[in-house]
Amino acid sequence: MPKIKAIHHVAVVVDDVEKALTFWRDALGIELHELRDVPAEHAQVAFLPIAGAEIELVRPTTEDSGLAKYLAKRGPGMHHICLEVDDLQGLLTQLKEKNVRLINEEPRVAADGKQYAFIHPEATGGALVELYQI
Amino acid sequence: MPKIKAIHHVAVVVDDVEKALTFWRDALGIELHELRDVPAEHAQVAFLPIAGAEIELVRPTTEDSGLAKYLAKRGPGMHHICLEVDDLQGLLTQLKEKNVRLINEEPRVAADGKQYAFIHPEATGGALVELYQI
Repeated sequence: MPKIKAIHHVAVVVDDVEKALTFWRDALGIELHELRDVPAEHAQVAFLPIAGAEIELVRPTTEDSGLAKYLAKRGPGMHHICLEVDDLQGLLTQLKEKNVRLINEEPRVAADGKQYAFIHPEATGGALVELYQI
Repeated sequence: MPKIKAIHHVAVVVDDVEKALTFWRDALGIELHELRDVPAEHAQVAFLPIAGAEIELVRPTTEDSGLAKYLAKRGPGMHHICLEVDDLQGLLTQLKEKNVRLINEEPRVAADGKQYAFIHPEATGGALVELYQI
């Protein structure tokens, strides 16, 4: 049976990464591991590791991505929770059997080779949930 | 210097805990550690541990709490990120020195003895952040 292994990251959508870093990095003292553009996600992302998990500050770099629309509609704030799973394909099959509404019915593959899929907030109690297999 | 030790939990505000559990517990397979009323927070809370961290599903039990107003205004979804810190008093002092806007200027003490304080979303890039010292 597929198993949820960890909270991998929590993503916060922001309109200004440098400004957000004055809090997360400078005031809280969390190390900034990396700040980079992720063209596939139309976003600039700051990665701030905390004990095996991560806070990700995400700023949309185009105006028509889902992320940009979310920011325009809801304002800056928490965007999604990402859970690490040992068998993404198996878990998606299990979720489909239970009629859980998915955004991605099959695993997608990121540029770095990680497999991921998003679950619709309607199914989770309102939170956007990402599943990751590393 | 105070240190952020871990992501302690992510709280999701829901309008129906049992319904949300059909996803988090039954479909994802995360164990429900505890479901209890927390009168001090005017909430019913489901605790779902994941590898040292936790998802908390939180339902307001009164209509006039901050949580109830958040749910009424924003709908169900992610509510806050809680970070564990080794020296809450020291970190709050550090945040005040950097003019970070706080909801609680001094540590508050929960019924179980944990010290906590909330940081205003305006300071963090939009996310409500709780700090915990255990």
